[in-house]
Order: sequence, then structure tokens, then C-alpha cells
Amino acid sequence: MTEPSAALAAALPPPLIHEAVERALEEDFGRAGDITSAATIPADAQAEAVIAARQPGVIAGLALAEAAFRRMDASCAFQALATDGERVDAGAVVARISGNARAVLSAERVALNFLGHLSGIATLTRRYADAIAHTPARITCTRKTTPGLRALEKYAVRCGGGRNHRYGLDDAILIKDNHIALAGGVAAAIGRARTAAGHLVKIEVEVDTLDQLGEALSAGAEVVLLDNMPPALLSEAVALTGGAAVLEASGGVTLESVAAIAETGVDTISSGAITHSAPALDLGLDMTVHPA
Amino acid sequence: MTEPSAALAAALPPPLIHEAVERALEEDFGRAGDITSAATIPADAQAEAVIAARQPGVIAGLALAEAAFRRMDASCAFQALATDGERVDAGAVVARISGNARAVLSAERVALNFLGHLSGIATLTRRYADAIAHTPARITCTRKTTPGLRALEKYAVRCGGGRNHRYGLDDAILIKDNHIALAGGVAAAIGRARTAAGHLVKIEVEVDTLDQLGEALSAGAEVVLLDNMPPALLSEAVALTGGAAVLEASGGVTLESVAAIAETGVDTISSGAITHSAPALDLGLDMTVHPA
Amino acid sequence: MTEPSAALAAALPPPLIHEAVERALEEDFGRAGDITSAATIPADAQAEAVIAARQPGVIAGLALAEAAFRRMDASCAFQALATDGERVDAGAVVARISGNARAVLSAERVALNFLGHLSGIATLTRRYADAIAHTPARITCTRKTTPGLRALEKYAVRCGGGRNHRYGLDDAILIKDNHIALAGGVAAAIGRARTAAGHLVKIEVEVDTLDQLGEALSAGAEVVLLDNMPPALLSEAVALTGGAAVLEASGGVTLESVAAIAETGVDTISSGAITHSAPALDLGLDMTVHPA
Amino acid sequence: MTEPSAALAAALPPPLIHEAVERALEEDFGRAGDITSAATIPADAQAEAVIAARQPGVIAGLALAEAAFRRMDASCAFQALATDGERVDAGAVVARISGNARAVLSAERVALNFLGHLSGIATLTRRYADAIAHTPARITCTRKTTPGLRALEKYAVRCGGGRNHRYGLDDAILIKDNHIALAGGVAAAIGRARTAAGHLVKIEVEVDTLDQLGEALSAGAEVVLLDNMPPALLSEAVALTGGAAVLEASGGVTLESVAAIAETGVDTISSGAITHSAPALDLGLDMTVHPA
Amino acid sequence: MTEPSAALAAALPPPLIHEAVERALEEDFGRAGDITSAATIPADAQAEAVIAARQPGVIAGLALAEAAFRRMDASCAFQALATDGERVDAGAVVARISGNARAVLSAERVALNFLGHLSGIATLTRRYADAIAHTPARITCTRKTTPGLRALEKYAVRCGGGRNHRYGLDDAILIKDNHIALAGGVAAAIGRARTAAGHLVKIEVEVDTLDQLGEALSAGAEVVLLDNMPPALLSEAVALTGGAAVLEASGGVTLESVAAIAETGVDTISSGAITHSAPALDLGLDMTVHPA
Amino acid sequence: MTEPSAALAAALPPPLIHEAVERALEEDFGRAGDITSAATIPADAQAEAVIAARQPGVIAGLALAEAAFRRMDASCAFQALATDGERVDAGAVVARISGNARAVLSAERVALNFLGHLSGIATLTRRYADAIAHTPARITCTRKTTPGLRALEKYAVRCGGGRNHRYGLDDAILIKDNHIALAGGVAAAIGRARTAAGHLVKIEVEVDTLDQLGEALSAGAEVVLLDNMPPALLSEAVALTGGAAVLEASGGVTLESVAAIAETGVDTISSGAITHSAPALDLGLDMTVHPA
Repeated sequence: MTEPSAALAAALPPPLIHEAVERALEEDFGRAGDITSAATIPADAQAEAVIAARQPGVIAGLALAEAAFRRMDASCAFQALATDGERVDAGAVVARISGNARAVLSAERVALNFLGHLSGIATLTRRYADAIAHTPARITCTRKTTPGLRALEKYAVRCGGGRNHRYGLDDAILIKDNHIALAGGVAAAIGRARTAAGHLVKIEVEVDTLDQLGEALSAGAEVVLLDNMPPALLSEAVALTGGAAVLEASGGVTLESVAAIAETGVDTISSGAITHSAPALDLGLDMTVHPA
Repeated sequence: MTEPSAALAAALPPPLIHEAVERALEEDFGRAGDITSAATIPADAQAEAVIAARQPGVIAGLALAEAAFRRMDASCAFQALATDGERVDAGAVVARISGNARAVLSAERVALNFLGHLSGIATLTRRYADAIAHTPARITCTRKTTPGLRALEKYAVRCGGGRNHRYGLDDAILIKDNHIALAGGVAAAIGRARTAAGHLVKIEVEVDTLDQLGEALSAGAEVVLLDNMPPALLSEAVALTGGAAVLEASGGVTLESVAAIAETGVDTISSGAITHSAPALDLGLDMTVHPA
Repeated sequence: MTEPSAALAAALPPPLIHEAVERALEEDFGRAGDITSAATIPADAQAEAVIAARQPGVIAGLALAEAAFRRMDASCAFQALATDGERVDAGAVVARISGNARAVLSAERVALNFLGHLSGIATLTRRYADAIAHTPARITCTRKTTPGLRALEKYAVRCGGGRNHRYGLDDAILIKDNHIALAGGVAAAIGRARTAAGHLVKIEVEVDTLDQLGEALSAGAEVVLLDNMPPALLSEAVALTGGAAVLEASGGVTLESVAAIAETGVDTISSGAITHSAPALDLGLDMTVHPA
Repeated sequence: MTEPSAALAAALPPPLIHEAVERALEEDFGRAGDITSAATIPADAQAEAVIAARQPGVIAGLALAEAAFRRMDASCAFQALATDGERVDAGAVVARISGNARAVLSAERVALNFLGHLSGIATLTRRYADAIAHTPARITCTRKTTPGLRALEKYAVRCGGGRNHRYGLDDAILIKDNHIALAGGVAAAIGRARTAAGHLVKIEVEVDTLDQLGEALSAGAEVVLLDNMPPALLSEAVALTGGAAVLEASGGVTLESVAAIAETGVDTISSGAITHSAPALDLGLDMTVHPA
Repeated sequence: MTEPSAALAAALPPPLIHEAVERALEEDFGRAGDITSAATIPADAQAEAVIAARQPGVIAGLALAEAAFRRMDASCAFQALATDGERVDAGAVVARISGNARAVLSAERVALNFLGHLSGIATLTRRYADAIAHTPARITCTRKTTPGLRALEKYAVRCGGGRNHRYGLDDAILIKDNHIALAGGVAAAIGRARTAAGHLVKIEVEVDTLDQLGEALSAGAEVVLLDNMPPALLSEAVALTGGAAVLEASGGVTLESVAAIAETGVDTISSGAITHSAPALDLGLDMTVHPA
Repeated sequence: MTEPSAALAAALPPPLIHEAVERALEEDFGRAGDITSAATIPADAQAEAVIAARQPGVIAGLALAEAAFRRMDASCAFQALATDGERVDAGAVVARISGNARAVLSAERVALNFLGHLSGIATLTRRYADAIAHTPARITCTRKTTPGLRALEKYAVRCGGGRNHRYGLDDAILIKDNHIALAGGVAAAIGRARTAAGHLVKIEVEVDTLDQLGEALSAGAEVVLLDNMPPALLSEAVALTGGAAVLEASGGVTLESVAAIAETGVDTISSGAITHSAPALDLGLDMTVHPA
């Protein structure tokens, strides 16, 4: 069972929701707004609508959908019938809206675009999470996100049972091959990072071989990214590390391969696909109209 | 062969490119910027890098990638080796960059995220376009786009050989079932729309049946969206219309079904999947470092 | 009688109103706000005020005025006594406001500036529309608008009984003389445009002569702009076209000439003057003060 | 002859020009940019163009026009052949542009809209200024400006030989009838203002009668606005004041009445019409195309 | 006793408060918001809290603190127990908040940062104001403020009993040594300024010597800044001026020296230190938690 | 000697510098720009200037100063004669500027305000860092920063030899007393945090007593904040911890007390004063003018 955590919703601060929805509405309204609804629908017509899932999945983004409808009709009623992080079946009604007919139709596409995109990420993440649920490993996102939507997409990953990697270039240190080459080796790079970073910044190092792993551990890396290692090598890395660092497996992670990777004992498995290649979840709005 | 049109690039106006890249860099830099590169790389180290496709596809978004690198190092050299809309093979080098090592690494992820996302859309669109290339029909996007990225995604659709549906609620009239119900019928809705709209706004009406199609044609609809009709019914609709309106088929469009739909003689086939569910194209940056 | 349409108000989406008013208030407040009211008026003094027309005209922009007052005193009462698009006489009270005295005075100028500017456009547009009311032709605006205010000004044109031309460079194709010269002729230009444009984009071509008109019609132009043709020539163009395209007359359009132009049978007459040269409608705020 | 002052141009700070032009281009480009030019003009075609006045007037806003063209083609050549504040005849070429053909056409309307609007204000202001050139009085603008364009419009007033009133609610104190009523009289209002205001803030008081004028002078007003007084009464006010305060005449100011008002000896005459009701100056762009 | 004026609060216009708080919250929330509270506190836990002064001082910024809490919990209760401009003792409770526990903790730091920074400025200003309270002179701020916070800091100066110098480069003329040198002397500079400036713009001139003072007075300067003159020289300047201009002393102003400067008879004493070097006032939030 | 690190400058990403400077210039220019310079200085006058320290200190913010001058005169020459993080004596010239005289004077105050504010923070931080240089402990900032300037202020702390605490609520977990109370104890709070946080997020816990410290260590806290403990208790805490966690001392940190705190063996000492109460460093601009 997926217990959607209340913590999830709270982690999307109001200013972030407001900014994302405002921007999306402006994008859809352009300069003249919903000219079809303005032309064809009486100004005071009311409507009731439901948002329903057309396929099974995990819901994410209800607060954004709600904000879109409220922005167009501040007095509309929006009742969530699911919570972010919840699994729903095809046909499930996830929200009920009642308000001005023009407003509901004008906000529909923005609301569904947010819900579909984020629920798609949550749904795919959940599939990975389920595939490794028999292990302590966790599925984790990357910085391979859609430009401008990172905070929302990382939230959707949490809704799908995943955990977040760093949010940007500034909230953790991740030393990769080019950094190592330019710094003059693993130990030198870690040393420089340790000097520069504050005490609340974790230091992760990417390695390709067990030799590099040993070097990273000796230099005191707190987290090591094992890049593109096959499961057998990952198992050796886990044994070699012996709990001295958190281990993240990366590269070649698919729904087919992820269980074998998790079973090697790594702590975390990161996947760009859960954010950059998740198909949208199909949701639709069904309206009952009340001509004024 | 796909001849990438120069018209494609020009249609992304400079302010739009600037705003999208600035926003994406700010998202990735957060408050402290690239702390890893700042800590580990000498300030004056130079680097050369190439961006290479890891899988075959259609490229879109090179101007955004270029803008990202230039924003971090105004004097860096960026040479595009492909053009937007061009098909590339796995391994193809699409751009060459030379500049400050920290700058190149700091901009890498933003550049690749734009390129991967937009090329993914162009690639999927191209597959649909190829599947119907034996017919005069054109594949078309929808408003089912990622919030905040619509203009870029519609550009990517064009790079993939598709055409664009309306950009928002304001640049064309699309009368759907709820509008018809609230306006009191197809003819009434079209009449109201005709009165309200300027002479450069097209009017499209969504219909589910041949009866509705007849009503829409009688009322003078310029474009008719045939919603969820099977090919046989689409063929009847084409015959009934006899060229009196542009016909758009929508619903149930997949790579498997699209050819049969196109062969019915409809003018346009619209797909939300090409924008909301296109997996990213896998591209990577390979760097040659020059310690200062 | 002018029946103001409810569709008018709805076509100004809330985010657009909010952004325009916020920007105007910031412009007027500068860094220190209304230092006169803060210095001279007790903080809790209440006031009642009316906005009255000082001359006859057509009202446009009441929602912006309301938003300005509410922004300064969220609990103030704003009652519109006219609707956008309505003709009013000199002396007519168009709105009644009751709220904090400082707030009302601080918002007064912004509210009146919006109302005066937009009502000025609506009033002038209405004069043109009345002058051709005996014909089916419609008066239409252009892109010759005040920078930054286009959406509001086009709304004001609708309030005055006019219709809108395209909103920008992106929502319709208008091929002018320079495009024709650079494309290599009328037919070539229309052909390129047809290939590039989506099926919801109309194509208009500007012509100077009947020969060019013939060429444009042969090439399938949907709308033709007849540039600077005298009425006699316009009549010939109407006859030549025979309903095969929408005809727009442009150039030399004044209140004196517009009826003769409309009587030639053209569908639309466009005027830059209704947006770029409309004098403001004179409106004022009369206040009854209640010292606290 | 009007000697355009170099001080005029400098007073439009670069960030203000940049922001205004960016906003106007975004407004005109919408989401897809100049789809006509992209479709019909070869990407590398070059063009030369001139901006010419179609009627006599005073030029204002050349820096904004230049910025618009440069934003679209950073390497285009823009040569101003007039300066802001200069009188030009019909047919005068005010600028010459050479650059990418698409870029020039894409920026044309924004450039002309700024030039036409601001030159219109400068031209009307100059007519008022000329009408009172035989007196020491100066024509002055008000806060009755187009929302969002105040700084530019006040600059245009200076280009026309006018002077600026305050820029907003925050840079000077102007005590009007309602402030006086709520403060409990002229003296009380001035006293409160004097206490609150810094030593670089001027205090102006609006009066309707000579009695109020006397009261204002006794209370130490530095500037007095004489509201809607006929010339005879203005002359009495000038005599009564005897140079003890700056006198501003306001109300009923037209091109016909302004000379008589100025001849009463007031220092300044303010007019809302020069900003809110100035017709645009007619300017056009003539292009010579060079197909690539 | 310091009677906090209601005028103070009103002079911070709502859009300015909104913008400052939104920006500060976004800065503190980054991309993921308050991850600690989201992880550890039940979503529906309520809390009561007080904001208390940890040291004596003058309060400024309560409206910003309130806005921060309300932004996170629109239904929270915020009760101010002090008013801006009020002196408080160590331990004094200045506000009481009751609302959602996560929301209160998430907004705490932003609220306290505004209150501490602005109250620090008000407190230091008040010390200067008290030191010269036996004279008619007033302490005045400068443009030496923290970038981006000028309007708030100038408001805090008023809360501390100070007055404001100009807000920026645009709302008054201040002719300094370099202007004089480039203009060709004091009289030339004042003459040019008088020609360019509107009738609501004051002209101040900076002088170093009594000779320059004489020249400035002859040229009609309304305000003279006496730069870095010792008290004896200031007294001479006051005598020389004889009330013909407002005199501002600047340079070498400390809590130790300010009384002697004020006693020379100058009207205004300006200090950069009250804004750029005021230590924050120590305030804290004490919470009573109610686990849900 | 302080060797200013090149890493410092690179960590201020270009978009951040651009945004901060643009905002500050807009704040200072208001609506009309530098009216004094425009009125008094010939448009083409050139000037040379130096920025000199008026007192000894540590420099921070040169890139912001440079950006301010370049924004006003893109072709001006700016030569830094010091580097961020460098100690300078009174009288030291830190930069040399040569360019348009109006531009230099218009940007002067913004440039100096950034330099003075940030160098003030760097200078105070350096004093703390020097006071504990004989120990391995490091001085660290907090979130008690000036609203809107956190990234710049944290950069200045690094320039002064300090290290950064977390940048916001989102980049590390810091469990304080209220979180513990609401979560039901130290262990429960840490457990919840561990579940929610990604593998690159550090978890810090605030404790008041050695008992709580023990509990935090048992629960696996990576960093422990020892709140308001006197040196003797800190020493006990260090012994008790035995290297099992990073220890941060907080509360009662002054220039007088900091050495004793550092000598207890804690790893990090955090101080709000270094950001919220640092007096500005006094710097000035000395100009040599060249009348045109």
C-alpha cells in the first residue's frame, strides 16, 4: 500500500505553486485569453466537473490543479478525492470542481497538463520503487529534468516513492571524471572540495573502477557514485566499501535491470529516465454543464 | 533526407531563447552556483568538448545549448555541426565547444536538458511524420505540452516535420462539446464565435458523429475536429465534407494506427503524445581537459 | 443602443488584469508610495467616491479600475454602475467606491488612467463603427498600439464595437510587399507560408493593384489587404474577388472617408488611429470625505 | 530652432530602455515570433531601410527604436539622422538601418510604435511650448500618462520643450482638496506635510480661490496649483503672490487658451492632454531588399 | 515618548511589501522549501508563538513580518502588540502568531530577518535623533543603503525619528564636486540644473568652503550640503546663510559628534551609518507547540 | 597573508550578478535616472576614477562593482587592483575605472554600496577567522542575512575566510527544539528526517544538554548544534562525541569569546552577527574629470 505522506504536499511552498501556475496560465492565455469560451458560453453559466484517471497510476500535482481553477474563479469549489502519492485505478475520480463554466474550461488544460506530467513521473517512479521494494535500496532522480520544472518534478519523484538527488549545482558536491582530471586526481579533488565546502554539504565522488573506489574511500568521500558498473562489479564494490560510504549505482538502469542492481546491496539507484522520459498519465475532465 | 529549414531557427525569437536559458541556469545554479567546479577546477583551465548523440534521432534546440554556454563564458566558441531538424546517427557529434573549463561544465546540464528534451520531441514527431509520408496528411501537436515550455516544444514539433496546432486559448477558436452544450447547439456556437472573432481567427468545431459534422459544415466551420472516429468513419467524413472544410483527426493516434488514419484522406492528425510523452533523446558531453 | 456583451469582460483574463494594475501602481508609487496622503490623512479615515464621465463616451476598463482600488484596500466596496462597452452621457456615474480614504486617493490616478485611456479608444472606435453601421463592414484595429498595452487596447476596441486584427506577429500570417519581394513573388510567398503554417493560421496578403489581387486569389489567399485603394478601385476589387476571399481595406481611413470605403463592399476596414491616436475620455473622481 | 539637448538622451537609463523594448518585443512576438518572415524570407537575406517622417513633428524615442533593431540583429547598423527633440519635416529620414532582413522586419512595428507614440507627445508638447515662447512660463506634464509608460512619456515631454511635474506619488507632495478636507484645513495639511517630508521634497498646494491662496502662502507653500482659474483671476493670484511661491496654472488649458494663461505671469502651466491625448506622429519604414 | 505615527505604516504600499516578502521567502525556500518541517512536523499541527525583543530598541517592519506568516498560512492569526516606531524594552512581546505549525516555522526566519534588520536601523536612528532632540536639527539618511532594500530602509529611518534624503538619483538634484568641475563652476551647474529640472525638484549643492557656500547662495541653491566642515565652520556657514537656504551637514557624523553639529544651527545632518552600519536588533520567536 | 582564492569569484554565477546589479540600478535610477549628471555634465565628457579603501579591510564584491559601471557604459575600462578576499590597507586603490563621465557617476553609488556592504561582511568575518586561526575550527554564517542578499552575503563570508552554513530551508535538515517537540523526541525526529531526505542531504540536530547530545548521537545525527553552551560544557560535548559527529557551537559568540569556544575542539562556530550586524567598509570613489 502506498501511504501518501502529508509531508509531500507541504514541501511545495505556496510561492512556488503560485509562480508555476501563473506562468502556465499566461502561456495558455496569451494576449486575449480563452476566446472560445468568452464567445460561446454565457458569463454566468455554472458547471460541475470531475477529473478522472483514464489509466492506472500514481497521482501528483493536485495542489497545482486546484490553484489553476481558483485563479480563474476564486470562489469555485475544488475537492480532492485523492492525495498526491496515491495509486489510483483507471476511472478513478481524483477531484471534483464546481464553479463558473468559463473559468473551469479556461483552466482545464493547465490543470491537466500539470497533473498529467507530474503524475506520469510519479507513476514511473513508483514502478521502479516497486521493483526494488524487496531490498533496502531507494530509487533516486537526477538533474536530468525538464528545464524550469525541476522542483515540481523532484516533488513528483517523492510522490512516486523515490528520493531526491541534489536539486542543483549548489546544494551538494558531486565530483565527476572531468573534475578529477582537472584537479589532479581523486584525492586532490576531494581535498579541495572539503576545504571549500561548508559542514552541511555532502561530498560525492563518481568512480568507474574499484581502484578509484578505494582511492575515494581513502580520501574520505561520504558518497560514491558507481558509474555504469555491472551487478557483479557493484557487489564487489559493496563488499569493498563495507559501509564506509553511501553507494549510488548509476547507468544502465531500466525496469528490467533495476532489481538486480538493487540486490547487489547498493544504497541508492539513480535514474534520469524517471524524470526526462516518463510518459504523461492520461487524465481527463468530464463536465456537467448548467446553462445560466 | 530531412532538409532542415532555416525558417525553423528564426522562429525562436532571441528574447524567448534568452528567457528560457536564464531561467534554467538560475534553477540549476540555485544560490551558490556550481560549487563543485569552483572548488576543484583552476579558474583559468580551458576545455574542449563535443556534444554527441548516444542514439539516432532528430536534433532540436541547438540555439538554446549555445546560449547556455555563452551565458557562462561569453568568449567561448560554439560550433554547431548539425542543424535543428536534422536526423543524426548514434555517435554523431552535433556541436563542438571550447572555452573556460568551469563555464563549460557549469552549463553542460542545462544545455543537454534542453537538447535532450526538444530532440526527443522532434524525434518522436519525425517517426509519426515518416509513418504518414505517403499521404498528404500532416502530424500536428496539441496544447498538451509541458507547462512553461509550449513555444519551445511546438518549435521541436516543427523540427520533427510536424505542424503546429494553436499556441494557446487565444489564437484560434476551438469549439468543443461543452461549448456546444452551453451555447445551445453547434450552429449557435459557431454563430456566436463568428460574431466575436476577428477576420484572422479560424474557427474549428469538434464533432463526434457524421450528423454533427453535417451541422458544422452547414454552419460554416472552417476546420472540423473528428474526435475518436475509427478509420472507416473518418473515410465517410472525408467523403461527406468534400473539401468544404479542413479535417483534423484526433484520438487513438499511435505509431501503429496513424498510417491508417492518414489514408482516410483527413488533412491533419493531432497527437498529444508527441509533446507530453516523448522520451528524451540521449545526448552526452565528452570533454578534453587542459589543466591551466 | 449598445448592448455591452458579457463576453467582453471575460476576455480579459485575471492574470493580465493583475499584472497591468500591479505594474501601474508600482510606477505611480515609486519607492515611497503616496507621501501626501500618508502625511495628511488619518490612517483610518473613510471616504466615498464616484467616478463620473465628464464627457459622453463609451466605457472600457472598469475591471482594471476595480482592481486598482481593491489592491490598496482589499475590503473596499466597488460598485460598477456601467458596463464595459456601454455608452454614457457627460455626468454619468460609472462606479461608486467606498473604503479607506488614503487607499482610495492612492489608487485614484491609476484607476482613472486606465479608464480614460481605454474608454478613449472605445469611444473613438464606436464613432467609426457607427459611421459604417449601415453596411456589413466592420472596423478593425491593427498592431499600431501603445507598447506594452496591446491586449488591453484590443479589448477596448471590442468594447467600442470594433473587431481585432491579429494580436502579434505570431497568430496569423500577413504577407506584405517586402515579404513578397524577398520571397520572389506573391505566389511563392503564399506557397511558402502555406507550407510553414499550421491549419489554424490564416494567411493574408497585402496588395496594391488589381493585378496583385488576382495573383493572390489564384494562389489561394484567404484574406487580402487592399492597401491605400480609393473607393472606386475597392469596388472593382470586391467585384473581382466575388466572395473568394475576405477583403480588408487599409490606408486613408478617417471618420470622413470610412463610410464610403465601407459602402464598396469590403468586409473589414482597419485603422491604426483608433488605438494610437485616440484622445483619452475625460473621467473624474468625486469624493465625500469622512474624517476619522 | 530647437537645439536638442544631449541631456535628454542620457536621462533614459539603459535598464529602462532595455526593459521597455524587451517587453514590447515579447508582446509582439507572442509565443512563435514573426511567422510570416520566417516562412517567406531566406534566413540570410539582408536589407537596408530608412525610417521617415510622414508628417512634420518633433522626434522622440530613437534610442528605443535602435534597441529594438539591435535586439533582433546584434550586428545590424543603426544610424540616427535626427536627434531626440529635433523638429523634422514631412519626408525627413530620421534613421537608417542595415541588417538581416528578417530581423529588420520583425522589429519594425515595435520600433515605429515607440517612435510614433513618443514623437506624438513631443510634437504636441512643442506646439504648446511654442505658443507660450514669448513668456517665461513653461508647459508641464502631469501624472495623467499611459499606464506603464510614464518615464518614457515624461522624457518625450522634455523632448518637446516641456518640463516634468512629479513622476509619481512619492517624489513631491501635492496637497489637493480632499487632503485639505481630511487634514482639517490648508494650514494643518501643510504643517503635517512639512513634518513628514524630507528636506528635498517640495510641497505644493492646490487652491481654488484667492482666499485659499492667501492661506497657502501664509502656511509656507513652496508651490501653489491654481485650479481652473480664468486668466483674470490668475493675474490677481500672481500679483497677490508677489514671487513668494511658484505658481502653476491647471485646468482648461488648450492650444487656444494657453497663451492667455501664460501671459498672466504664472510660472508653469500643466496639461494632461500632452500625454494622454497626443495623436501618434506618422512615421514609416521604407526598405530596400537584397534577396540572399 | 515616541508616538509612532500611523503615517509610517501607510507609507509602505502593499505592492512593495508583497514583493519584498515574496522575494525573501523564495530566497529561503529555494527549490524544495522547508524540508525539515515537512519531514518532522505533522501537517495539521498548530502552534502559538510570540516575537519578543531580546534587547531594547525601536521596532520597524511589523507589516513585513505579518505578510510572511500570512503567505504561508493565509488563515493564521497575527496580532501586533507594538507599532512601528515604538520603543520597546528587552523582553517585550511585539507580536503574537497562531497558526499551522509548519507554516509558522517556515516563515520565522524571513519575518525575523526583516524585523531585525529594519528595527536595527530604526534603533540606531533613534539614538541619533535623541542626541539632537534639544535642537531643531533632524537626522537624515543617505543613498548609502543596502542594494535592493532602499525603500524599506528609508521607512525604518522614519520609524526611528529620522527624515529621508532623496530616494534615488531621480527625485532631487544634488550637485557634487565632480558635477561642478564638469559643468564649469557652481553657478554654471546650478543654472543648468534649474533649466532642466521641473518646478517640483529641489536643487542641492555640495560645498567645501564658505566661498563656495557664498557662490551657491548667490546662484540660488535651495539646499546646501556642507561637506566635512568642523562645528566652528558650520556655525559660520549658518550665520553666512541667514536662512536663505536649508543647510545640511555631512561627514564625520557620529553619536559623539552629532550634538555639537546640531548645535551649530544646521537644519539637517545626514548619516550613511544609520542605514549601512546599523547592527540588527535581536528579536526571537518563542513557540508553544500543539502536536496534532 | 590571505591568498584570495580564484574559486571565490567563480562561485558567483553571471546571472546572479546581473540580476543583483540590474535591480540595484533600477532602485537608484527610479523613473528618470541621474537627473543631476544629465543636467550638468556634457554627454561626451570622459572621466577616470579610482575606488579606494578609506579604512583597512577585506575586499568582496568587485565583480558587482564592475558590472554596475559596465551596465552604464559598455565600453568603459574597469581594472581591478585587488581581488575578492584580499586584505587592503587604508588608502589602497582597489579598482580603476575610465569611461563616460555621466556613466561613471551614475553607477558610483550602486558600485560602492555593493562593495561596502560585502567588504564589511568579509572584514568582520576575517576578524573572527583570525581570532581562531590557531585552532582547526572554522567560523560559519547562518540564515540571519539581509532579505534578498543571502547568496551575496554568503559569498562575502567566504571572502573573509569563513564557511557557509546551509543556504536556505531546503538544502540541509536542521532539527530544532520545536521540531523535536512536535515530532515526539530527538530520535523520532531524526528518524523521520532520515526517511524523507535524499542521500545528499545532511541532518543536523540542535541540542541544549549533554543528554540530548547523547540521544542525537545514538540516533545517528551527522552534525550536532550545541546551543548556548559555555566553553566548559562544550569541551565535555567534544569528549562525549569522540568524533562521531561534526559539532557546531552557536550562541554567545563574540570577538571576545570566540577563541575560547574554538579551543574546546568544536569543528564549527556559527555567528549571525557576521552577516546581520557587520558595519560597511568605508570605500570611496575619487574622480579625475576631463571636460569634453
